[in-house]
Amino acid sequence: MPLVFDRYKSDVDAALRASLSSGISPVYEMLRYSMGWVDVSGKPTFATEGKALRPTLCLLACEAAGGARADAIPAAAALELIHDFSLIHDEIQDRDETRRHRPTLWTVWGEAKALVAGNVLRIVADMALWGYSGRRNGLAVAALMTQAYLEMIEGQYLDMRYEGRSDITLDDYMSMISRKTGALIRCSLVAGATIGFRSPAAVEAFEASGRAFGMVFQVRDDYLGVWGDEAATGKPVGADIRRKKNAFPFVYSISRASAKDRDALLEIYGQPEVDDGDVTAALGIMERLGAKEEAQALAKLHSDRAVAALDEVDMLPEARRDIEDIAHFLLVRDR
Amino acid sequence: MPLVFDRYKSDVDAALRASLSSGISPVYEMLRYSMGWVDVSGKPTFATEGKALRPTLCLLACEAAGGARADAIPAAAALELIHDFSLIHDEIQDRDETRRHRPTLWTVWGEAKALVAGNVLRIVADMALWGYSGRRNGLAVAALMTQAYLEMIEGQYLDMRYEGRSDITLDDYMSMISRKTGALIRCSLVAGATIGFRSPAAVEAFEASGRAFGMVFQVRDDYLGVWGDEAATGKPVGADIRRKKNAFPFVYSISRASAKDRDALLEIYGQPEVDDGDVTAALGIMERLGAKEEAQALAKLHSDRAVAALDEVDMLPEARRDIEDIAHFLLVRDR
Repeated sequence: MPLVFDRYKSDVDAALRASLSSGISPVYEMLRYSMGWVDVSGKPTFATEGKALRPTLCLLACEAAGGARADAIPAAAALELIHDFSLIHDEIQDRDETRRHRPTLWTVWGEAKALVAGNVLRIVADMALWGYSGRRNGLAVAALMTQAYLEMIEGQYLDMRYEGRSDITLDDYMSMISRKTGALIRCSLVAGATIGFRSPAAVEAFEASGRAFGMVFQVRDDYLGVWGDEAATGKPVGADIRRKKNAFPFVYSISRASAKDRDALLEIYGQPEVDDGDVTAALGIMERLGAKEEAQALAKLHSDRAVAALDEVDMLPEARRDIEDIAHFLLVRDR
Repeated sequence: MPLVFDRYKSDVDAALRASLSSGISPVYEMLRYSMGWVDVSGKPTFATEGKALRPTLCLLACEAAGGARADAIPAAAALELIHDFSLIHDEIQDRDETRRHRPTLWTVWGEAKALVAGNVLRIVADMALWGYSGRRNGLAVAALMTQAYLEMIEGQYLDMRYEGRSDITLDDYMSMISRKTGALIRCSLVAGATIGFRSPAAVEAFEASGRAFGMVFQVRDDYLGVWGDEAATGKPVGADIRRKKNAFPFVYSISRASAKDRDALLEIYGQPEVDDGDVTAALGIMERLGAKEEAQALAKLHSDRAVAALDEVDMLPEARRDIEDIAHFLLVRDR
């Protein structure tokens, strides 16, 4: 994993812990569990935190301009808190039982409490931005983040509407993930660039870069959802097939398949339950149609774009290298 | 119903409709249904909107100072949108199947979509406040509203934690409803007063008034939950007993009961299902202990306080009359 994640880790962690430290209600214990800081009984743990990709992108974009990291910390914290809020609710919606090999919030405390806990975290995320009230660009940052949250949630809705449908085109799919996953990742870079840079052209370049980053992230996620190594991902091979997910491998295959292969895939996805034999059959069709290579090629295309979009931006060389490292990492990550 | 509700109705309605008019995603159709503007198939209806109590209190407090109504409209709209968001999620949490005699959002579209729709509405509520960015008190209004949302949601969490427990004291209960219901009602008056008045003393008086208004509202709600006329409330008599709710009538009765009555009530509430005979028995005990009269007396106490808290505030006489009318209405409403 790129060193840049380590560089920002303790600052981001401190800001996140501070944002949740003054909450007295027991709901905050649930949130500390969700953030990976304690186990179900409230005992501290250290092994289960995420990469903090979004805060890292935000801080990186800010420092790339020569901006002060401290200026971007509130936005970085808000991004991770909103991301965690969206996971808590997503897990209820999708009935996901584990995250990073741990029981999800709703499986431990029930859906009702998890719903409320997510709503609390949403507000904690808003409050993380109050430090910006008096500052240059402060309202602009808050507004662009709120806009990104809206896109993210509208994208989640679209994803739900696509469930069970067999007529989702590649364009539909790209448009949906650009909102559902892309908006927050894009916003991470744009917020950081807005805080660190004074040039609208630079912010626009980071927006284009962010758009591409969002694509790499999701397409690789979809690749792992079908072909990921279980030991790394924590999910069985073909997990997304079992869930009949309208993710890239499926949507791409349907768009390229002969009538026979199409019918076969639709029949598998049309069943109430998908068993191991179905997964093997679907994998066979998808691989024969080149979906595996195409997913990697598409991810690589966007990974290259994410870097190229910043070619004209005057930034610190080490920041450019960090961005390249992250673009590469997102392409090859195994979990 | 007091005329003041009619006076503000069209302005509030226009602002709410405007806030949801530009949304393209089908999730906005769900929200228009939730707001009572269309039926399940998207056809316009007019019979199912609520009182808009919170916006009314907000606009009233603003105009009471001689402030301009237009200044308070964004806050008023945000309050109603947040209230509706909280209802959408509450109904999922509590498994409520109807609101104002109509199927709730989750029963029509499923919990997952209703969860997301609520999250969209939450953001629309935030966006309603953007009009305040450049104005005097603008950030103060946004901050106090966010603080109120947090109290409201923490209160919902407390309410959930109290479920099934028999050791909830009157103090616990009052503290919980002050957050769960009171915070947003209090905030409606404080936001309006902050926008309309220039005096911190006046804003404080409205905060005290709001605290009392919140109490009247919830205690009367709890009264109706046990003794409300089904034709008016849409719920059978003793609905809250059937749900074994830790509401005022129950909490009060437990605190006053002899050991025998206490055991009887706890036994009824301890069952997996509460039948008609149980409801009759519980009603008998509660009425014998004077819970019905006590609920009304407590509501009256707070209704008087809500008015008296504003005695020292220099405001338009007609506004004072409107406030008295609302305080009385909340005491006697039958739904």
